[in-house]
Amino acid sequence: MKVYSRTSFPLPVEQLNAMVEWLSGFTENKGSGVTRLLYSEEWLEAQEALKRKMEEGGLDTYYDDTGNLFGRLEGTIDADSTVLTGSHIDSVVNGGKYDGAYGIIASFLAVEHLYRKYGRPSKTIEVVSLCEEEGSRFPLTFWGSGNITGVYKDKDITHIADKSGVSLKEAMNKAGFGRGIHRLPYRENIEAFIELHIEQGSVLEKSCNSLGVVTHIVGQRRYTVSIKGKSNHAGTTPMQDRHDAMTTAAELITYITAKVQKADPHLVATVGKLDATPNVPNVIAEEVSFTLDIRHYDEGMLEKVCAEIFQHFEVVSQEKKVNISFSQWTDVKPVEMDAFLQEKAIGVSTRQQLSFQKMLSGAGHDAQLFGTHCPTSLIFVPSVNGVSHSPEEYTKAEDLTQGVQMLTELLYEMAYDKGGEEK
Amino acid sequence: MKVYSRTSFPLPVEQLNAMVEWLSGFTENKGSGVTRLLYSEEWLEAQEALKRKMEEGGLDTYYDDTGNLFGRLEGTIDADSTVLTGSHIDSVVNGGKYDGAYGIIASFLAVEHLYRKYGRPSKTIEVVSLCEEEGSRFPLTFWGSGNITGVYKDKDITHIADKSGVSLKEAMNKAGFGRGIHRLPYRENIEAFIELHIEQGSVLEKSCNSLGVVTHIVGQRRYTVSIKGKSNHAGTTPMQDRHDAMTTAAELITYITAKVQKADPHLVATVGKLDATPNVPNVIAEEVSFTLDIRHYDEGMLEKVCAEIFQHFEVVSQEKKVNISFSQWTDVKPVEMDAFLQEKAIGVSTRQQLSFQKMLSGAGHDAQLFGTHCPTSLIFVPSVNGVSHSPEEYTKAEDLTQGVQMLTELLYEMAYDKGGEEK
Repeated sequence: MKVYSRTSFPLPVEQLNAMVEWLSGFTENKGSGVTRLLYSEEWLEAQEALKRKMEEGGLDTYYDDTGNLFGRLEGTIDADSTVLTGSHIDSVVNGGKYDGAYGIIASFLAVEHLYRKYGRPSKTIEVVSLCEEEGSRFPLTFWGSGNITGVYKDKDITHIADKSGVSLKEAMNKAGFGRGIHRLPYRENIEAFIELHIEQGSVLEKSCNSLGVVTHIVGQRRYTVSIKGKSNHAGTTPMQDRHDAMTTAAELITYITAKVQKADPHLVATVGKLDATPNVPNVIAEEVSFTLDIRHYDEGMLEKVCAEIFQHFEVVSQEKKVNISFSQWTDVKPVEMDAFLQEKAIGVSTRQQLSFQKMLSGAGHDAQLFGTHCPTSLIFVPSVNGVSHSPEEYTKAEDLTQGVQMLTELLYEMAYDKGGEEK
Repeated sequence: MKVYSRTSFPLPVEQLNAMVEWLSGFTENKGSGVTRLLYSEEWLEAQEALKRKMEEGGLDTYYDDTGNLFGRLEGTIDADSTVLTGSHIDSVVNGGKYDGAYGIIASFLAVEHLYRKYGRPSKTIEVVSLCEEEGSRFPLTFWGSGNITGVYKDKDITHIADKSGVSLKEAMNKAGFGRGIHRLPYRENIEAFIELHIEQGSVLEKSCNSLGVVTHIVGQRRYTVSIKGKSNHAGTTPMQDRHDAMTTAAELITYITAKVQKADPHLVATVGKLDATPNVPNVIAEEVSFTLDIRHYDEGMLEKVCAEIFQHFEVVSQEKKVNISFSQWTDVKPVEMDAFLQEKAIGVSTRQQLSFQKMLSGAGHDAQLFGTHCPTSLIFVPSVNGVSHSPEEYTKAEDLTQGVQMLTELLYEMAYDKGGEEK
């Protein structure tokens, strides 16, 4: 059977792999994965190199004043309304070659191919290399997409600095941005944003699918739970007389885990950090604090489960005669991906016989910010062993290729005339 | 009703309190409780001052070569066989005024009173100020009683040093000990050892008893339990795919607590220390290690419960697909106090209408080492709020007094002729 694909092209695996390697070369600490922090020298070199590559591919390039880089193919019929595609160029410290970078590379290869094969689209397509998503250098995330979508519009960044005390503004200015030279980042003319990204989990690997069409990016709540008990002698205090912060913490963690597992298969909760005081073997713990990270695609579910967990805290607090308090420090709402774009992505995958599934994104992505601003689609390719934020991050070339293939077709359907033929 | 007491004497509370204050004055860091570490200047000053006080009270004094100080009343009939009474002179860093010190003071006041009132006993009585029990300066405990009872006979102390690198031998020599000047510490002529000590728990305070006649000093086992799971993304890893070291630890701690509470009311288990890796909020914990301190007076019970706990570890390890290992680093056997001396102490308390109860010692004491060497009795007075090892350590004067009263009578019954009358 001939696979239906107007856009299918013999994308040489070598070309894709070579571009992944090439982009990963713009890094601090060569040999320990990729470290490309916002506004660093390596970051600027990567953006400038991408800019040249886009220009070589026939795209018009420009920066916005935040440092987001765009490669533009102006539409022949509708020049203003833009189909935007890309991901972020920054990395965590000692991260991998694919997180963010793959989305930019895929977008560039797809658009370059479409341009070579079909010329200019009817609607404008832009490839974007978003300046920041990870929050690795400065204590803020989504600096790139947040500026485009207006989230950072009234944000006072005066006091935001990196670990060495360099302020965000200073670093930005030094890299040539934030000085009014470039156009303002805020955009109201994005008809759709499409992001390809590695999954950073094992769902696709386990189901043996090459593509994940994301339905929702989950909401995230993060809390610190503090238990104040009473420090006492490990030998002289009978069990029934204890106000033990550690056993209380253990009971709460066990309760939360069971509760979350029972509530919904898509709900996840993580206690990743726990600190005890005085933390010595022969003294009953006086204080224990632990973090709770809880995620789901439905805000109502988050609200309900958290409320039940906190109600249980009260019961345990009275029963164990310990003080239990909690404070929330992250509240990211779930974001639904555009239903029409999901259907389009599924249609393309089906027609091209690419193996795919619908799925959630448990991690945050730039698509999350675009998702409340314009129709947005997020598509995953598998992560081997679910590993990310590590030099071991890896996605097989055949999966990377299928992502590019699906994106190419999707962009064609969205930005080129229906029934458009090859040049 | 007249209370039966041959030895009762109007022990002025002021005198007892004054001696507690006086001895607490030999300390580093005045104003932050008592810090009197083995072989320190303050330690030597305290021993020397006690020596003078004993001599003023009519006792013959001598040191052994470890630095244990003795005040001796030689028996008129049986000079060699000795009734020994006392406790330890060293303290923890920023400890209290009563831990150890009270036992020495009580012994001195009792013996001084008996000598003043009845002259020399038939059997030799010695008051002992044991040089070390706490392990606060050097990484070893019971240095005083361990040398008397032969526990440290073949101990190689060459490599034992304090935090500043001063070796035990060097510190000992500097204080005048370990050079063969004094008699060897090992003793085989102790007919009985009697120690008064603060409870360091709340059992007596809760039952409103002034005295606790200890039946057993519990055995102690300490373990480090290590769980090796798999670090993963808090958002992208479904609950059922996790190998979470933290939730496993929580489940084990909850299991241990329930198990121990159910097994026996005298069994205590403490998880005082827990460390997680990488210990960040949004990453599933890869490794968690925690300590388990478990105590009971019956070695068989300890063995049985620990075996059941470790069996459960295997079940959980398979169920959660995490690796659970444990290593033991403390194994102190339970020690039973002498039954005859317990009965004697109870007889004295009953006749003197002192409120008392039988109880366990959950903490270690010098009586533990004597207990396997010679007939030994350990008697507690209450600790207000169960506090010890703190400047807040406190025992009410009336309780301190009752302890001295009971010890005086007990020593009389053991070392003076039966039916002996006042001088």
